[in-house]
Amino acid sequence: MPAPLLPLTPAVAVDDDALRAALACAERCADDAGAVIRPHFRARLVVDDKAGDDELYDPVTIADRDAETVIRNRLELERPLDGLYGEEHGFRPGRSGLTWVIDPIDGTRAFISGMPLWGTLIALYDGERPIAGVMDQPFTGERFIGSRLGATLTHGGRTTPLATRPCAQLEDAVLYSTHPKLFTGAFEQAAFADLCARVRMTRFSGDCYAYCMLAAGQIDLIVESGLKPYDVQALIPIIEAAGGRMSGWKGESGAHGGRIVAAGDPLLHAAALEVLAEVP
Amino acid sequence: MPAPLLPLTPAVAVDDDALRAALACAERCADDAGAVIRPHFRARLVVDDKAGDDELYDPVTIADRDAETVIRNRLELERPLDGLYGEEHGFRPGRSGLTWVIDPIDGTRAFISGMPLWGTLIALYDGERPIAGVMDQPFTGERFIGSRLGATLTHGGRTTPLATRPCAQLEDAVLYSTHPKLFTGAFEQAAFADLCARVRMTRFSGDCYAYCMLAAGQIDLIVESGLKPYDVQALIPIIEAAGGRMSGWKGESGAHGGRIVAAGDPLLHAAALEVLAEVP
Repeated sequence: MPAPLLPLTPAVAVDDDALRAALACAERCADDAGAVIRPHFRARLVVDDKAGDDELYDPVTIADRDAETVIRNRLELERPLDGLYGEEHGFRPGRSGLTWVIDPIDGTRAFISGMPLWGTLIALYDGERPIAGVMDQPFTGERFIGSRLGATLTHGGRTTPLATRPCAQLEDAVLYSTHPKLFTGAFEQAAFADLCARVRMTRFSGDCYAYCMLAAGQIDLIVESGLKPYDVQALIPIIEAAGGRMSGWKGESGAHGGRIVAAGDPLLHAAALEVLAEVP
Repeated sequence: MPAPLLPLTPAVAVDDDALRAALACAERCADDAGAVIRPHFRARLVVDDKAGDDELYDPVTIADRDAETVIRNRLELERPLDGLYGEEHGFRPGRSGLTWVIDPIDGTRAFISGMPLWGTLIALYDGERPIAGVMDQPFTGERFIGSRLGATLTHGGRTTPLATRPCAQLEDAVLYSTHPKLFTGAFEQAAFADLCARVRMTRFSGDCYAYCMLAAGQIDLIVESGLKPYDVQALIPIIEAAGGRMSGWKGESGAHGGRIVAAGDPLLHAAALEVLAEVP
């Protein structure tokens, strides 16, 4: 079924205490999801020829579905007035004006390859934009959190602030994108090729992990297309609180996905938008 | 300086006890290297404008050089008769006929991007081929080990055997390669494009980590070119002991690097070689 679009409504005010409570709830959801996903990571796909389709054990499908279920169960219990919008189980409107936006496993191709670059994404959307985001990587034990209260990485019991690094010019930038084939059509391909030709280094892979490395000041630029709201919403507050910018290719809000450009340095973000605007 | 070629000499016999002792030494080297590298991972490059070039802090350069130094120091102490061949400090012949082949940080581009897909590679070469290999990832705490005695992954205090997965046909295979630009010249590009068109899924990134995921039965095929002996030697015993095959594109020994094809299923390896042989 095609995912319904996330509604655009006037932003709901959330004070700092309420925001802290929401972040704590998102962290509990990430704990639950990690416990569900971890045993399936690097498990083998098993097809039982003697049985029907029900007997197929497909680790990523099961982990994805079950992780979203435990997240939704907790949110329905702790946040009954909020809406829910997830990759697996779709949209359920709420009454508070706030919506939780969930991708239980972002980076399923990394997941099925055993690469620890996938993550659980949980965001709180206020009707206009995401105001809180968590990216949890349960294999490495890393948790990236962002909101207007700040951006942090928790790993091995230590919490440290996240900060992007200065990099004002394309020729100095390290660019990431998940896959060269992400770009479809002549315009997108030309735009990406143009950026690749200008930057210092281009690398593929990363999914949500690359956005967190941008927030951590390890890379400078990410350009992607074809993204869904649940692919991006949790990452926007992390990157913005770390000092970066994340938007659509025309500078519009990135909250609804689509074509996305994220940069650690606002000057680099502007430079990338300028290049993208010049593509015929 | 261009790296000297690893000499090809008659294989030195190494019995099981001697092989176990060599593996234990390689693990101690990996412990030393991990302790040196870990503090530099995700550290920031610092250029002190007031000072000379000596004051430049470049995490990957320093980590690479210092990690190879501690590995060489231990090997000189514990294995004084063996030769040493490392990415950073070159070749020093030994008298035993055995040579240690070292890449302190394979995947420097992943390293400088904060991605945990790099690794320390340590191999023991008997004059004809690598007979023991260790790939250590100190951030995730994973250690992959291979020799004729078996292939294992140690992680979080648990050691489990590595085994590739069956995947006989290209159309079912997940193919990894570090970067599409790795392939230079019309022949290599045509060969890689041909394989990409036949497989189920192609992903970029991974470096040594992808080879270990192949040994762990998570992916099926890796095709690369332009590799050095120290990029591949540690990975060959891991993949072969896990049930896979790793060779040059013409089926020749992969021990000296160059163009490499690795497959988890020997039938898939043969199928890939067949495609590569047909490229004009």
